[in-house]
Amino acid sequence: MEIRILNGKTVAVGAGESIYKTLRDNGIYLVASCGGKGVCGKCRLKILEGRMRVESTGKLLKKDIEENIVLACQSFPEGDILIDIPEDSKLIIGDKIALSKTKDLLQYLHTVEPVLTPAVRRIVLELTPPSIQDNTGDLERMKRVLHEKGIHDMEFSHNFILEMPVILRDAEWEVCLSYTESHEAIGLSAFCKTKHYGVAVDIGTTTVVVYLVNCADGTLVDSGMTFNSQMRHGDDVITRIVYATEGGGLQELRDAIINDVNDLLAPIVEKNRINIEDIDSAVISGNTTMTQLFWGLDPSSIREEPYIPTVNIYPGWRAGTAHLKINPQAPVYTLPNVGSYVGGDIVAGVLASRMHKSPEISLFMDIGTNGEIAVGSSEWMITAACSMGPCFEGSGIRHGMRATEGAIESVKIEPSSFEPVLGVIGNGLPLGICGSGMIDAISELFFTGIIDQRGKLARDLSTDRIRTGDEGPEFVLYRGERKDIVLTEVDIENVIRAKAALYAGVSVLLKEVGLSLDILERIYIAGGFGNYLDVDKAIMIGMLPDLPLEKFSFIGNTSIAGAYLCLLSEKMRREAEETAKKMTYVELSASRGFMDEYMSALFLPHTNIDLFPTVRDLYEKR
Amino acid sequence: MEIRILNGKTVAVGAGESIYKTLRDNGIYLVASCGGKGVCGKCRLKILEGRMRVESTGKLLKKDIEENIVLACQSFPEGDILIDIPEDSKLIIGDKIALSKTKDLLQYLHTVEPVLTPAVRRIVLELTPPSIQDNTGDLERMKRVLHEKGIHDMEFSHNFILEMPVILRDAEWEVCLSYTESHEAIGLSAFCKTKHYGVAVDIGTTTVVVYLVNCADGTLVDSGMTFNSQMRHGDDVITRIVYATEGGGLQELRDAIINDVNDLLAPIVEKNRINIEDIDSAVISGNTTMTQLFWGLDPSSIREEPYIPTVNIYPGWRAGTAHLKINPQAPVYTLPNVGSYVGGDIVAGVLASRMHKSPEISLFMDIGTNGEIAVGSSEWMITAACSMGPCFEGSGIRHGMRATEGAIESVKIEPSSFEPVLGVIGNGLPLGICGSGMIDAISELFFTGIIDQRGKLARDLSTDRIRTGDEGPEFVLYRGERKDIVLTEVDIENVIRAKAALYAGVSVLLKEVGLSLDILERIYIAGGFGNYLDVDKAIMIGMLPDLPLEKFSFIGNTSIAGAYLCLLSEKMRREAEETAKKMTYVELSASRGFMDEYMSALFLPHTNIDLFPTVRDLYEKR
Repeated sequence: MEIRILNGKTVAVGAGESIYKTLRDNGIYLVASCGGKGVCGKCRLKILEGRMRVESTGKLLKKDIEENIVLACQSFPEGDILIDIPEDSKLIIGDKIALSKTKDLLQYLHTVEPVLTPAVRRIVLELTPPSIQDNTGDLERMKRVLHEKGIHDMEFSHNFILEMPVILRDAEWEVCLSYTESHEAIGLSAFCKTKHYGVAVDIGTTTVVVYLVNCADGTLVDSGMTFNSQMRHGDDVITRIVYATEGGGLQELRDAIINDVNDLLAPIVEKNRINIEDIDSAVISGNTTMTQLFWGLDPSSIREEPYIPTVNIYPGWRAGTAHLKINPQAPVYTLPNVGSYVGGDIVAGVLASRMHKSPEISLFMDIGTNGEIAVGSSEWMITAACSMGPCFEGSGIRHGMRATEGAIESVKIEPSSFEPVLGVIGNGLPLGICGSGMIDAISELFFTGIIDQRGKLARDLSTDRIRTGDEGPEFVLYRGERKDIVLTEVDIENVIRAKAALYAGVSVLLKEVGLSLDILERIYIAGGFGNYLDVDKAIMIGMLPDLPLEKFSFIGNTSIAGAYLCLLSEKMRREAEETAKKMTYVELSASRGFMDEYMSALFLPHTNIDLFPTVRDLYEKR
Repeated sequence: MEIRILNGKTVAVGAGESIYKTLRDNGIYLVASCGGKGVCGKCRLKILEGRMRVESTGKLLKKDIEENIVLACQSFPEGDILIDIPEDSKLIIGDKIALSKTKDLLQYLHTVEPVLTPAVRRIVLELTPPSIQDNTGDLERMKRVLHEKGIHDMEFSHNFILEMPVILRDAEWEVCLSYTESHEAIGLSAFCKTKHYGVAVDIGTTTVVVYLVNCADGTLVDSGMTFNSQMRHGDDVITRIVYATEGGGLQELRDAIINDVNDLLAPIVEKNRINIEDIDSAVISGNTTMTQLFWGLDPSSIREEPYIPTVNIYPGWRAGTAHLKINPQAPVYTLPNVGSYVGGDIVAGVLASRMHKSPEISLFMDIGTNGEIAVGSSEWMITAACSMGPCFEGSGIRHGMRATEGAIESVKIEPSSFEPVLGVIGNGLPLGICGSGMIDAISELFFTGIIDQRGKLARDLSTDRIRTGDEGPEFVLYRGERKDIVLTEVDIENVIRAKAALYAGVSVLLKEVGLSLDILERIYIAGGFGNYLDVDKAIMIGMLPDLPLEKFSFIGNTSIAGAYLCLLSEKMRREAEETAKKMTYVELSASRGFMDEYMSALFLPHTNIDLFPTVRDLYEKR
C-alpha cells in the first residue's frame, strides 16, 4: 500500500497506520498541535484518489468533508491513495530566530573575565621520568606534579587510569591533562591541541538551536537550528508531559530531542572537520520540562499540584550519559531551573540581559506558549510563568500559523472603508496569520471601532468583511481563491486571554514587591516571538505595559545566548546558579490577586484605561 | 575425541588441544609452575591407552618416558586416550590458611573507634512534603535536609536521580539514603535495612580468600577460599605479567580473578540468603601485580626497570567497574601499594600487626614466593622485597609440593644411622616435600654433618641414602614403591639461595637505617607459610635472624585481616594510606650492599657464624 503525494514523493503505508504517522515516519511533518489526537484539526489533507477508513472528522466543517478534506491523524488508508497537502498543513522550518551576536557577548565576557574559563581546562604537566631512585607509581607521579601546581584533589576514573601508562610513556612524560572544573581528569594526550570545542544548546519547546564554539578563543564556529521533533507529540509542554507518562513515551521524547541535537551537530562537525573527541564540553538551556526530558527524567510531577520538578540545579553529568555524540567524558552543564514553570532558559535570559547585575529594576519577558516574567535587580528578583496558550504560535486560531512564509505579519486597516492592508512574510499570497499579525490586526480592529473593548465585532458597520461563519462572527482579512483568511471572535478572545495573562502576571509580580510599573527602567523582551513584535501595537492591545518605547529592548533568543556565556565562563555558570537560587518563584495559579488582575485585563487595552495613558490619549484624539 | 581419566571422568578434547588445556577447561587443574610451557616438568601424566603427538619431553627422564609418562602441556591427543594422573601432579585446594580471628580484630577496632565506619553510611532523611508554598525541586529538597545535618557536598549520579522521585513519593518523603565516605549518594530506600554487608578479599598469587561481613555489627557471616585461577598461567607474578602482555592475556587474567571472587561469593550469598544489593562495600588486598590485574591495569611496567606500578593509591572505583557481583554502586577500597614489589597485602599486614602504631621497632615478614620485609615503628618504616623463588611453595624442587596432604612437613635425622623420620600431612604415605619440610630437612642434614656449610653432600659417609641421581648428588628421604623422594644438591642450593635472599634483605634494611638486629623487639611472620614454620629450624639454617623465640609472632594471613579492618573502619583506611606513604621502599636489586649480604648468607647458617650465636653454641656442643 502506498501514499502518493501530489507533486511529491510516494511512501509505503502499513495496514492500520494513519496517514499522519506514515508521513511523519518518512520525514514529512504536518502541523498537529494536539500531537495527532484528532483534536486540533490542523493536519488537514485533500484526498484525490483512493479509499480509507476515517475514524473521526474532528473540527472539519461540512464543506471540508464535501471537498474530500480529512484529518491525517484520523485517516487509515485501505489501498493506494493520492493526496494533496495544503500549504498551511505543512510544518516548515523557517522561524526567524535571531542568532545572538556572539561577538558582542564575547567582548562583554572579556570585560568581566580576562581569560575564558570553559568547563574543561588543560594543563601541561612535565613529569620527572621514573628511575630506581624515584620509583613512585605513574598516578602518584602525576599527582605530585599537580600538587606542585596547587591542585590537590584531582579525581581519576578507571578508564582514565587504564589508558594513562601508555600515554605517559609515549609522550615521554610530558603530557597535556584535560580536567573538569570540579577536578575530574577526563583526558590525557601527548600535546595540547590548540583548538578545543564546546557546544551550546537551546532546547525550545518548538525549536532547537546549537552553537559550536571554539573554546580556546570563544569564536562561534558554526550554528544550526531545527524543529524539536517532540512536536510530533504535541505543541506544548503539557501535552508532552502527558505523552511521557504513556508506555515508552518518556524514552521516545528523550530520544527525539537527543537525536535532534546530534543531527544538528553531525553536519557541522563534518563540514568544519572537527574530531568529536575535541568537543569536550556542552551547555544545555531549556525550560524545566525540556531539560528533564533531555536527561530522561520523568516530568509528570511538573504537571501535578504542587508542581515539583525533579531537579532545579543539575549535577554535572557527562555527555556519554546524555548520549550526546561528542567526547563522552565532556561535562554537560545544564542551566539551573527556578521551578517547574520557570526553567534554565529564563535563567539564561536573565544572565544574557545582565539585569541581575544592574542596580536598576528591570522586567524580563520571554513570550512564547508560556510567558515567563522576571522582575528585579542586582538585589532581588521575582519570577512567574503564565500560560498564554499557543495562540501566538498559530495554534487555537482558525487561520493561525507560525511566522513562516505566507504568514500575515502586519495589518493596517483603512478607517473609513475597513479594508485591510496586509504584510505577508515572503511577499507572496497569504496562507494564514501569525502572532505579530494578530496583535496588529486586533489593535487596528479596535482603533477603527470594528471591535469593542471586549473584542466583540460590531454588527452595525457597513462592510461585508464582518460576517457570521461556521464558528460565529468573524472578520475577513483576505478573500482567497480557495479559502478566505478570517479572524473570528473566538480567535480574538483567545488573543485577549493570552495578553491578559501576561499583563496580569507582570502586575501581580510588581504588587508582590509593592512596586508600580513606572519603577521599571528597562523591559527586555526575549524569545523567538520577540523579534517581530511591534511594541506600539502590543501596548495598544494592553499586552505590554504602557511605558516609553525606549525602555524596551528586544534581545532575541537569550536562551542560547546564556548557554554560550556559560560555555565559556565559570563566572557565568556560578552567576547562573546564584541567580536561579535568588529568583523567588510565584505560583500565579495560587495567587488570589492574579485572577482579579486577569479579569481586569480581559479588555482592550484594560478595564482601567488610566493604566494606558498613551492608548487613552490616542483613543481620545481619534 | 575423548580423554578418559582412570577412576575419573571422561572429557572431550578438540583437535590440536593439549591434554593440559583440555583438563583445565574442564576444571581439572594440574600443577604447572611454568604456566604450561613445557619448562617446569610438573604436569606429568601416565598414558595408559591411545596415541598422541608429543611436542617436547622437557625435564622428563629416560625412565619416565619408558613408563609412558608425558607432560600434559606438551601432549596433543590424536584419538581417544586413557590417562592416569599421579597424585603429585594434581592441584588440590588444601593449604592451611588460618582465617584470622575476626572477633579479636573486632574487639580491637572497638577500642580505637567506638562506632563502625564502613565505606557506606546510611542516614534517615525526613523531608517536608512539597506544597505550593514550598515548591522546590526533589533534589533541592533532599539537599536542604542534608544541609541541616551538616552535609553540604553530596554528589548525585544520573541513575540515582532517575529513580529518586518515585522512591521519595512511595516512601512519603521519609527515606534512607546510602552514601560513600566521599559523599556520593549510592542508594535510596523507604527504610533502613538493619543489615548491610561488605566483602573483604585477599587476592594472593596462589590463593584467594573472601570474608563476608555484616557491616552493621562487624560479625563474620561466612568465608571462602580457593586457588587463584590465574595459576593456569604460571605460579609467580612474573610469569603472569609476561602472560598479561600476550594477546588477550591481561583480560584473561582479570576475568580469572574476578570469576574466582564471584564464584566464592555466590554460594555464600545463597546459603546466607543475602540480597546482593545489600552488599554495598568491598575491600581488596593483594600484591601490586594482583590488584593491578584485578582492575585490568597492564602490569608490564612492574617487571621492567625502573619497576613502576601504574597506581599505588587506588581511587575509589565501584563494584560495577570491577565486575564484582555485589551492589554495582558499592565503593571498592583497594589497599594501597608502596611500590611494584611491596603491595597492599603488606600494608594490610603492617596494619594488622599494629607495628605502625608502636614505639618499639618491629620486623614484619611475609614469606611466600616473594619475601616482603618491613622494619620500623610508629615513627618510620622501611620496606623491601626479595625474590626467594618458588621453592617454599614446592616449585623448583625435584620432589617439592605444596603443604597439602601427602607432603613431608617435618624431618628428623638420626645422627648415627642417618635414617630420617618423616612427618607427613594427613599421616599417609609421602608424595613430596613442602617448604617447612625442606627447612627441617636441611637443618637436620647440616647438624648431622650430611651436608656442609655450603649445602654440599658429604661423599664419605657410610650410608646409601647419599647417592648420585639424574641431577647429581641427592639424599634419599623416602624409598617409595613407585618412586623415591629425594632432596638434591640443586634443591638444597635453591633453598639456601631463598633463605639468603630473605636474610640479606633484613640485613640491608637494618643497615639502611643504621640499626642492628638486637634492636628488634618483635618479629611478625605472616603469610600462609608462616603457619607451620619451625622458627628454631629456620634460625638454624640462617633464614630467620637469631633472636629469642618469644620475639617471634605468627600472625597468619594478615592480608585478609587488614582488609577486614579496612572494611569496617574509616580510621583503618586512612591509616593504610598513611602507612603506605610512610613506608620507604628500598629496591634491593639496586643496593650495592645487598649482593655482599646475599653472598655472605649463602652459607649454613651464615659466613659469619657469630651472627648466629645460638646455632654456633649448638654446633659447638654437638
